[in-house]
Amino acid sequence: MDSPETADAQERHRERAQRKKALVDRRIARATIDRGVVVVNTGNGKGKSSSGFGMLARSLGHGFHCGVVQFIKGRSTTGEDLFFRTLGDAFADRLRYHVMGEGFTWETQDRDRDIASAQAAWAVAAGMLADEACDFVLLDELNIALVKGYIALEQVLEALAARPPRQHVVITGRGAPAALVEAADTVSEMRVVKHAFKAGIKAQKGIEL
Amino acid sequence: MDSPETADAQERHRERAQRKKALVDRRIARATIDRGVVVVNTGNGKGKSSSGFGMLARSLGHGFHCGVVQFIKGRSTTGEDLFFRTLGDAFADRLRYHVMGEGFTWETQDRDRDIASAQAAWAVAAGMLADEACDFVLLDELNIALVKGYIALEQVLEALAARPPRQHVVITGRGAPAALVEAADTVSEMRVVKHAFKAGIKAQKGIEL
Repeated sequence: MDSPETADAQERHRERAQRKKALVDRRIARATIDRGVVVVNTGNGKGKSSSGFGMLARSLGHGFHCGVVQFIKGRSTTGEDLFFRTLGDAFADRLRYHVMGEGFTWETQDRDRDIASAQAAWAVAAGMLADEACDFVLLDELNIALVKGYIALEQVLEALAARPPRQHVVITGRGAPAALVEAADTVSEMRVVKHAFKAGIKAQKGIEL
Repeated sequence: MDSPETADAQERHRERAQRKKALVDRRIARATIDRGVVVVNTGNGKGKSSSGFGMLARSLGHGFHCGVVQFIKGRSTTGEDLFFRTLGDAFADRLRYHVMGEGFTWETQDRDRDIASAQAAWAVAAGMLADEACDFVLLDELNIALVKGYIALEQVLEALAARPPRQHVVITGRGAPAALVEAADTVSEMRVVKHAFKAGIKAQKGIEL
Protein backbone atom coordinates (compact mmCIF):
# COMPACT_ATOMS: atom_id res chain seq x y z
CA MET A 1 0.00 0.00 0.00
CA ASP A 2 2.82 2.37 0.85
CA SER A 3 5.09 1.48 -2.06
CA PRO A 4 5.30 4.06 -4.85
CA GLU A 5 3.21 2.95 -7.77
CA THR A 6 4.20 3.18 -11.38
CA ALA A 7 1.96 4.71 -14.02
CA ASP A 8 1.51 1.14 -15.32
CA ALA A 9 0.10 -0.08 -12.01
CA GLN A 10 -2.24 2.91 -11.89
CA GLU A 11 -3.40 2.15 -15.40
CA ARG A 12 -3.98 -1.55 -14.61
CA HIS A 13 -5.98 -0.53 -11.56
CA ARG A 14 -8.08 1.83 -13.68
CA GLU A 15 -8.79 -0.88 -16.25
CA ARG A 16 -9.77 -3.41 -13.58
CA ALA A 17 -12.04 -0.85 -11.94
CA GLN A 18 -13.66 -0.05 -15.31
CA ARG A 19 -14.36 -3.73 -16.00
CA LYS A 20 -15.82 -4.14 -12.53
CA LYS A 21 -17.99 -1.06 -12.98
CA ALA A 22 -19.25 -2.36 -16.34
CA LEU A 23 -20.10 -5.71 -14.75
CA VAL A 24 -21.96 -4.10 -11.87
CA ASP A 25 -23.78 -1.76 -14.27
CA ARG A 26 -24.91 -4.74 -16.39
CA ARG A 27 -26.16 -6.59 -13.33
CA ILE A 28 -28.07 -3.56 -12.13
CA ALA A 29 -29.57 -3.07 -15.60
CA ARG A 30 -30.81 -6.66 -15.56
CA ALA A 31 -32.57 -6.28 -12.19
CA THR A 32 -35.69 -4.52 -13.43
CA ILE A 33 -38.44 -6.00 -11.26
CA ASP A 34 -39.67 -3.48 -8.71
CA ARG A 35 -41.84 -4.88 -5.95
CA GLY A 36 -42.02 -5.66 -2.25
CA VAL A 37 -39.73 -8.42 -1.04
CA VAL A 38 -39.79 -10.97 1.76
CA VAL A 39 -36.47 -11.14 3.62
CA VAL A 40 -35.68 -13.96 6.06
CA ASN A 41 -32.76 -13.77 8.53
CA THR A 42 -32.06 -17.14 10.10
CA GLY A 43 -29.19 -19.25 11.51
CA ASN A 44 -27.61 -19.38 14.97
CA GLY A 45 -25.31 -16.35 14.67
CA LYS A 46 -25.72 -12.81 15.87
CA GLY A 47 -27.32 -10.20 13.60
CA LYS A 48 -30.76 -11.53 12.68
CA SER A 49 -32.91 -9.14 14.72
CA SER A 50 -30.45 -6.25 14.64
CA SER A 51 -30.46 -6.45 10.83
CA GLY A 52 -34.28 -6.32 10.91
CA PHE A 53 -34.15 -3.19 13.07
CA GLY A 54 -31.56 -1.68 10.74
CA MET A 55 -33.97 -2.18 7.82
CA LEU A 56 -36.73 -0.65 9.96
CA ALA A 57 -34.52 2.44 10.41
CA ARG A 58 -33.90 2.54 6.64
CA SER A 59 -37.62 2.25 5.95
CA LEU A 60 -38.51 5.00 8.40
CA GLY A 61 -35.76 7.08 6.78
CA HIS A 62 -37.54 6.77 3.43
CA GLY A 63 -40.83 7.93 4.93
CA PHE A 64 -42.45 4.49 4.95
CA HIS A 65 -45.27 3.43 7.25
CA CYS A 66 -43.91 0.54 9.29
CA GLY A 67 -45.15 -2.18 11.59
CA VAL A 68 -43.19 -4.30 14.06
CA VAL A 69 -44.33 -7.38 15.96
CA GLN A 70 -41.87 -8.96 18.40
CA PHE A 71 -42.83 -12.59 18.97
CA ILE A 72 -40.39 -13.13 21.84
CA LYS A 73 -39.81 -10.69 24.65
CA GLY A 74 -36.57 -10.83 26.59
CA ARG A 75 -35.87 -10.34 30.28
CA SER A 76 -35.15 -6.66 30.10
CA THR A 77 -36.20 -3.65 28.10
CA THR A 78 -34.15 -3.66 24.94
CA GLY A 79 -32.40 -0.81 23.21
CA GLU A 80 -34.66 -1.18 20.18
CA ASP A 81 -37.70 -0.85 22.46
CA LEU A 82 -36.25 2.28 24.03
CA PHE A 83 -35.16 3.71 20.71
CA PHE A 84 -38.11 3.05 18.42
CA ARG A 85 -40.86 3.25 21.03
CA THR A 86 -39.64 5.95 23.39
CA LEU A 87 -37.48 8.22 21.28
CA GLY A 88 -39.71 7.71 18.28
CA ASP A 89 -42.03 10.67 18.75
CA ALA A 90 -40.84 12.11 15.43
CA PHE A 91 -42.28 9.15 13.56
CA ALA A 92 -44.90 7.79 15.96
CA ASP A 93 -47.60 8.30 13.32
CA ARG A 94 -45.69 6.03 10.94
CA LEU A 95 -44.75 3.21 13.29
CA ARG A 96 -46.94 0.58 14.94
CA TYR A 97 -44.99 -1.48 17.45
CA HIS A 98 -46.41 -4.56 19.17
CA VAL A 99 -44.54 -6.68 21.70
CA MET A 100 -45.92 -10.11 22.54
CA GLY A 101 -47.19 -10.29 26.12
CA GLU A 102 -45.13 -13.10 27.60
CA GLY A 103 -41.42 -13.74 28.13
CA PHE A 104 -39.30 -16.47 26.58
CA THR A 105 -41.18 -19.71 26.39
CA TRP A 106 -38.80 -21.44 28.83
CA GLU A 107 -39.62 -18.72 31.33
CA THR A 108 -43.39 -19.04 31.24
CA GLN A 109 -43.38 -22.87 31.30
CA ASP A 110 -46.99 -22.83 30.24
CA ARG A 111 -47.56 -24.06 26.71
CA ASP A 112 -51.21 -23.02 26.47
CA ARG A 113 -50.43 -19.49 27.53
CA ASP A 114 -47.49 -19.36 25.08
CA ILE A 115 -49.76 -20.46 22.23
CA ALA A 116 -52.40 -17.90 23.15
CA SER A 117 -49.77 -15.10 23.30
CA ALA A 118 -48.22 -16.13 19.99
CA GLN A 119 -51.60 -16.30 18.26
CA ALA A 120 -52.62 -12.90 19.63
CA ALA A 121 -49.37 -11.46 18.28
CA TRP A 122 -49.98 -13.18 14.95
CA ALA A 123 -53.42 -11.55 14.73
CA VAL A 124 -51.72 -8.14 14.97
CA ALA A 125 -49.15 -9.18 12.34
CA ALA A 126 -51.85 -10.47 10.00
CA GLY A 127 -53.57 -7.09 10.26
CA MET A 128 -50.37 -5.33 9.19
CA LEU A 129 -49.78 -7.77 6.30
CA ALA A 130 -53.30 -7.05 5.02
CA ASP A 131 -52.92 -3.27 5.34
CA GLU A 132 -52.36 -1.37 2.06
CA ALA A 133 -50.99 1.56 4.07
CA CYS A 134 -48.24 -0.54 5.64
CA ASP A 135 -45.02 -0.40 3.58
CA PHE A 136 -42.70 -2.43 5.81
CA VAL A 137 -43.42 -5.15 8.37
CA LEU A 138 -40.84 -6.64 10.73
CA LEU A 139 -41.88 -9.96 12.32
CA ASP A 140 -39.09 -10.38 14.85
CA GLU A 141 -38.48 -13.98 16.04
CA LEU A 142 -41.54 -15.27 14.18
CA ASN A 143 -39.49 -18.35 13.20
CA ILE A 144 -39.30 -19.41 16.86
CA ALA A 145 -43.10 -19.45 17.09
CA LEU A 146 -43.30 -21.40 13.80
CA VAL A 147 -40.72 -23.98 14.87
CA LYS A 148 -42.58 -24.55 18.13
CA GLY A 149 -45.83 -24.94 16.23
CA TYR A 150 -47.48 -22.05 18.11
CA ILE A 151 -48.52 -20.48 14.79
CA ALA A 152 -49.48 -22.45 11.68
CA LEU A 153 -47.01 -22.04 8.81
CA GLU A 154 -49.84 -22.19 6.24
CA GLN A 155 -51.47 -19.09 7.76
CA VAL A 156 -48.20 -17.19 7.45
CA LEU A 157 -47.54 -18.30 3.86
CA GLU A 158 -51.08 -17.34 2.85
CA ALA A 159 -50.81 -13.91 4.47
CA LEU A 160 -47.45 -13.28 2.75
CA ALA A 161 -48.82 -14.33 -0.64
CA ALA A 162 -51.91 -12.12 -0.27
CA ARG A 163 -50.13 -9.00 1.01
CA PRO A 164 -49.98 -5.67 -0.92
CA PRO A 165 -47.49 -6.07 -3.80
CA ARG A 166 -45.19 -3.24 -2.71
CA GLN A 167 -45.03 -4.22 0.96
CA HIS A 168 -41.67 -5.44 2.33
CA VAL A 169 -41.62 -8.06 5.08
CA VAL A 170 -38.64 -9.07 7.21
CA ILE A 171 -38.87 -12.26 9.28
CA THR A 172 -36.18 -13.24 11.79
CA GLY A 173 -35.31 -16.16 14.05
CA ARG A 174 -33.46 -19.47 14.10
CA GLY A 175 -34.69 -22.45 12.17
CA ALA A 176 -36.71 -20.80 9.36
CA PRO A 177 -38.98 -23.53 7.93
CA ALA A 178 -38.04 -24.72 4.41
CA ALA A 179 -41.36 -23.59 2.93
CA LEU A 180 -40.79 -20.06 4.27
CA VAL A 181 -37.28 -20.00 2.75
CA GLU A 182 -38.87 -21.15 -0.51
CA ALA A 183 -41.46 -18.34 -0.37
CA ALA A 184 -38.92 -15.63 0.51
CA ASP A 185 -36.99 -13.46 -1.97
CA THR A 186 -33.85 -12.93 0.09
CA VAL A 187 -32.60 -15.30 2.78
CA SER A 188 -29.45 -14.92 4.87
CA GLU A 189 -28.10 -17.46 7.28
CA MET A 190 -26.21 -15.78 10.11
CA ARG A 191 -23.48 -18.25 10.99
CA VAL A 192 -21.60 -18.11 14.34
CA VAL A 193 -17.88 -17.75 13.75
CA LYS A 194 -17.40 -16.86 17.42
CA HIS A 195 -19.49 -15.30 20.19
CA ALA A 196 -18.42 -13.24 23.21
CA PHE A 197 -20.98 -15.05 25.41
CA LYS A 198 -19.05 -18.32 25.05
CA ALA A 199 -15.93 -16.50 26.30
CA GLY A 200 -17.81 -15.51 29.46
CA ILE A 201 -18.81 -11.99 28.43
CA LYS A 202 -22.30 -10.88 29.52
CA ALA A 203 -24.89 -9.76 27.01
CA GLN A 204 -24.10 -6.09 26.39
CA LYS A 205 -26.49 -3.16 26.13
CA GLY A 206 -26.38 -1.74 22.63
CA ILE A 207 -25.09 -5.04 21.23
CA GLU A 208 -27.43 -7.84 22.37
CA LEU A 209 -29.85 -5.78 24.49
CA MET B 1 -50.81 -27.51 17.44
CA ASP B 2 -54.58 -27.83 17.25
CA SER B 3 -54.89 -31.29 18.79
CA PRO B 4 -56.22 -31.37 22.36
CA GLU B 5 -53.41 -31.96 24.81
CA THR B 6 -53.49 -34.27 27.77
CA ALA B 7 -52.40 -33.19 31.23
CA ASP B 8 -49.38 -35.46 30.68
CA ALA B 9 -48.28 -33.58 27.58
CA GLN B 10 -48.66 -30.30 29.42
CA GLU B 11 -46.58 -31.64 32.28
CA ARG B 12 -43.84 -32.90 29.93
CA HIS B 13 -43.76 -29.49 28.26
CA ARG B 14 -43.45 -27.78 31.65
CA GLU B 15 -40.56 -30.05 32.66
CA ARG B 16 -38.73 -29.49 29.38
CA ALA B 17 -39.22 -25.75 29.74
CA GLN B 18 -37.89 -25.84 33.31
CA ARG B 19 -34.76 -27.74 32.25
CA LYS B 20 -34.20 -25.30 29.40
CA LYS B 21 -34.64 -22.33 31.73
CA ALA B 22 -32.16 -23.84 34.23
CA LEU B 23 -29.63 -24.36 31.42
CA VAL B 24 -30.02 -20.80 30.16
CA ASP B 25 -29.82 -19.45 33.72
CA ARG B 26 -26.56 -21.36 34.32
CA ARG B 27 -25.07 -20.06 31.08
CA ILE B 28 -26.04 -16.50 31.96
CA ALA B 29 -24.59 -16.91 35.47
CA ARG B 30 -21.27 -18.03 33.96
CA ALA B 31 -21.01 -15.00 31.66
CA THR B 32 -19.74 -12.53 34.24
CA ILE B 33 -17.27 -10.42 32.26
CA ASP B 34 -18.64 -6.96 31.59
CA ARG B 35 -16.74 -4.90 29.02
CA GLY B 36 -16.90 -3.41 25.56
CA VAL B 37 -16.90 -5.90 22.69
CA VAL B 38 -15.72 -5.91 19.09
CA VAL B 39 -18.34 -7.35 16.73
CA VAL B 40 -17.51 -8.23 13.11
CA ASN B 41 -20.22 -8.91 10.50
CA THR B 42 -18.75 -10.47 7.39
CA GLY B 43 -19.66 -12.89 4.56
CA ASN B 44 -21.40 -12.35 1.23
CA GLY B 45 -25.00 -12.38 2.47
CA LYS B 46 -27.38 -9.56 3.26
CA GLY B 47 -27.55 -8.15 6.79
CA LYS B 48 -24.03 -7.01 7.66
CA SER B 49 -24.57 -3.25 7.56
CA SER B 50 -28.24 -3.36 8.52
CA SER B 51 -27.29 -5.32 11.66
CA GLY B 52 -24.71 -2.64 12.46
CA PHE B 53 -27.38 0.05 12.12
CA GLY B 54 -29.74 -2.00 14.28
CA MET B 55 -27.09 -2.07 17.03
CA LEU B 56 -26.64 1.69 16.55
CA ALA B 57 -30.38 2.11 17.23
CA ARG B 58 -30.08 -0.09 20.33
CA SER B 59 -27.12 1.94 21.55
CA LEU B 60 -28.88 5.25 21.01
CA GLY B 61 -31.88 3.74 22.82
CA HIS B 62 -29.69 3.14 25.88
CA GLY B 63 -28.47 6.74 25.87
CA PHE B 64 -25.01 5.96 24.53
CA HIS B 65 -22.80 8.40 22.66
CA CYS B 66 -22.24 6.90 19.22
CA GLY B 67 -20.02 7.36 16.19
CA VAL B 68 -20.49 6.06 12.65
CA VAL B 69 -18.00 6.07 9.78
CA GLN B 70 -19.18 4.73 6.42
CA PHE B 71 -16.16 3.65 4.38
CA ILE B 72 -18.10 3.09 1.17
CA LYS B 73 -20.73 5.41 -0.16
CA GLY B 74 -23.36 4.06 -2.53
CA ARG B 75 -24.95 5.63 -5.59
CA SER B 76 -27.91 7.12 -3.79
CA THR B 77 -28.82 8.51 -0.41
CA THR B 78 -29.59 5.57 1.84
CA GLY B 79 -32.39 5.13 4.33
CA GLU B 80 -29.90 4.97 7.18
CA ASP B 81 -28.48 8.32 6.07
CA LEU B 82 -31.95 9.81 5.96
CA PHE B 83 -32.98 8.27 9.24
CA PHE B 84 -29.96 8.78 11.47
CA ARG B 85 -28.69 12.02 9.93
CA THR B 86 -31.87 13.83 9.01
CA LEU B 87 -34.49 12.60 11.46
CA GLY B 88 -31.92 12.39 14.21
CA ASP B 89 -32.42 15.81 15.76
CA ALA B 90 -33.52 14.20 19.02
CA PHE B 91 -30.11 12.62 19.44
CA ALA B 92 -27.85 14.83 17.33
CA ASP B 93 -25.74 15.63 20.39
CA ARG B 94 -25.06 11.91 20.89
CA LEU B 95 -24.31 10.86 17.30
CA ARG B 96 -21.34 11.71 15.09
CA TYR B 97 -21.85 10.48 11.54
CA HIS B 98 -19.14 10.57 8.89
CA VAL B 99 -19.55 9.39 5.30
CA MET B 100 -16.42 8.83 3.21
CA GLY B 101 -16.15 11.35 0.40
CA GLU B 102 -16.02 9.15 -2.68
CA GLY B 103 -18.28 6.54 -4.25
CA PHE B 104 -17.62 2.86 -4.75
CA THR B 105 -14.06 2.24 -5.75
CA TRP B 106 -15.07 0.88 -9.17
CA GLU B 107 -16.86 4.14 -9.77
CA THR B 108 -13.98 6.48 -9.04
CA GLN B 109 -11.42 4.37 -10.94
CA ASP B 110 -8.66 6.31 -9.26
CA ARG B 111 -6.67 4.30 -6.75
CA ASP B 112 -4.76 7.24 -5.28
CA ARG B 113 -7.96 9.16 -4.62
CA ASP B 114 -9.58 6.05 -3.09
CA ILE B 115 -6.63 5.59 -0.74
CA ALA B 116 -6.71 9.25 0.29
CA SER B 117 -10.47 9.08 0.97
CA ALA B 118 -10.18 5.84 2.95
CA GLN B 119 -7.34 7.20 5.04
CA ALA B 120 -9.19 10.44 5.76
CA ALA B 121 -12.19 8.37 6.90
CA TRP B 122 -9.87 6.21 9.01
CA ALA B 123 -8.51 9.33 10.73
CA VAL B 124 -12.07 10.18 11.82
CA ALA B 125 -12.63 6.58 13.00
CA ALA B 126 -9.35 6.56 14.93
CA GLY B 127 -10.47 9.72 16.72
CA MET B 128 -13.68 7.98 17.80
CA LEU B 129 -11.83 4.84 18.94
CA ALA B 130 -9.56 7.01 21.10
CA ASP B 131 -12.46 8.99 22.61
CA GLU B 132 -13.42 8.04 26.18
CA ALA B 133 -16.81 9.71 25.65
CA CYS B 134 -17.68 7.45 22.70
CA ASP B 135 -19.60 4.34 23.83
CA PHE B 136 -20.34 2.74 20.46
CA VAL B 137 -18.53 2.99 17.11
CA LEU B 138 -19.85 1.56 13.83
CA LEU B 139 -17.21 1.22 11.09
CA ASP B 140 -19.41 0.33 8.15
CA GLU B 141 -17.65 -1.49 5.27
CA LEU B 142 -14.24 -1.03 6.86
CA ASN B 143 -13.37 -4.59 5.75
CA ILE B 144 -13.56 -3.52 2.11
CA ALA B 145 -10.91 -0.86 2.69
CA LEU B 146 -8.76 -3.40 4.57
CA VAL B 147 -9.05 -6.06 1.86
CA LYS B 148 -8.05 -3.53 -0.78
CA GLY B 149 -5.09 -2.45 1.32
CA TYR B 150 -6.29 1.16 1.50
CA ILE B 151 -5.92 1.13 5.28
CA ALA B 152 -3.23 -0.82 7.14
CA LEU B 153 -4.65 -3.66 9.25
CA GLU B 154 -2.01 -3.08 11.95
CA GLN B 155 -3.29 0.47 12.52
CA VAL B 156 -6.80 -0.85 13.02
CA LEU B 157 -5.73 -3.66 15.38
CA GLU B 158 -3.69 -1.23 17.46
CA ALA B 159 -6.55 1.27 17.70
CA LEU B 160 -8.97 -1.51 18.76
CA ALA B 161 -6.58 -2.80 21.42
CA ALA B 162 -5.98 0.69 22.83
CA ARG B 163 -9.63 1.82 22.90
CA PRO B 164 -11.56 2.62 26.12
CA PRO B 165 -12.43 -0.70 27.82
CA ARG B 166 -16.21 -0.17 27.80
CA GLN B 167 -16.43 0.96 24.18
CA HIS B 168 -18.27 -1.31 21.72
CA VAL B 169 -17.12 -1.45 18.08
CA VAL B 170 -18.99 -2.98 15.16
CA ILE B 171 -17.10 -3.57 11.90
CA THR B 172 -18.86 -4.70 8.74
CA GLY B 173 -17.98 -5.80 5.21
CA ARG B 174 -17.05 -8.85 3.17
CA GLY B 175 -13.74 -10.61 3.61
CA ALA B 176 -12.85 -9.70 7.20
CA PRO B 177 -9.09 -10.36 7.56
CA ALA B 178 -8.20 -13.36 9.76
CA ALA B 179 -6.31 -11.21 12.28
CA LEU B 180 -9.38 -9.02 12.74
CA VAL B 181 -11.58 -12.09 13.31
CA GLU B 182 -8.98 -13.24 15.85
CA ALA B 183 -9.09 -9.86 17.65
CA ALA B 184 -12.91 -9.67 17.70
CA ASP B 185 -15.21 -10.99 20.45
CA THR B 186 -18.23 -11.83 18.30
CA VAL B 187 -18.07 -12.66 14.59
CA SER B 188 -20.99 -13.57 12.35
CA GLU B 189 -20.72 -14.71 8.77
CA MET B 190 -23.79 -13.68 6.79
CA ARG B 191 -24.24 -16.47 4.26
CA VAL B 192 -26.36 -16.02 1.12
CA VAL B 193 -29.11 -18.64 0.98
CA LYS B 194 -30.83 -16.67 -1.79
CA HIS B 195 -31.00 -13.05 -2.94
CA ALA B 196 -33.78 -11.18 -4.72
CA PHE B 197 -31.23 -9.35 -6.91
CA LYS B 198 -30.29 -12.63 -8.61
CA ALA B 199 -33.97 -13.15 -9.46
CA GLY B 200 -33.98 -9.78 -11.25
CA ILE B 201 -35.47 -7.68 -8.45
CA LYS B 202 -34.01 -4.16 -8.10
CA ALA B 203 -32.40 -3.01 -4.86
CA GLN B 204 -35.33 -1.84 -2.74
CA LYS B 205 -35.58 1.26 -0.56
CA GLY B 206 -35.87 0.25 3.07
CA ILE B 207 -34.25 -3.12 2.38
CA GLU B 208 -30.96 -2.51 0.56
CA LEU B 209 -31.08 1.29 0.27
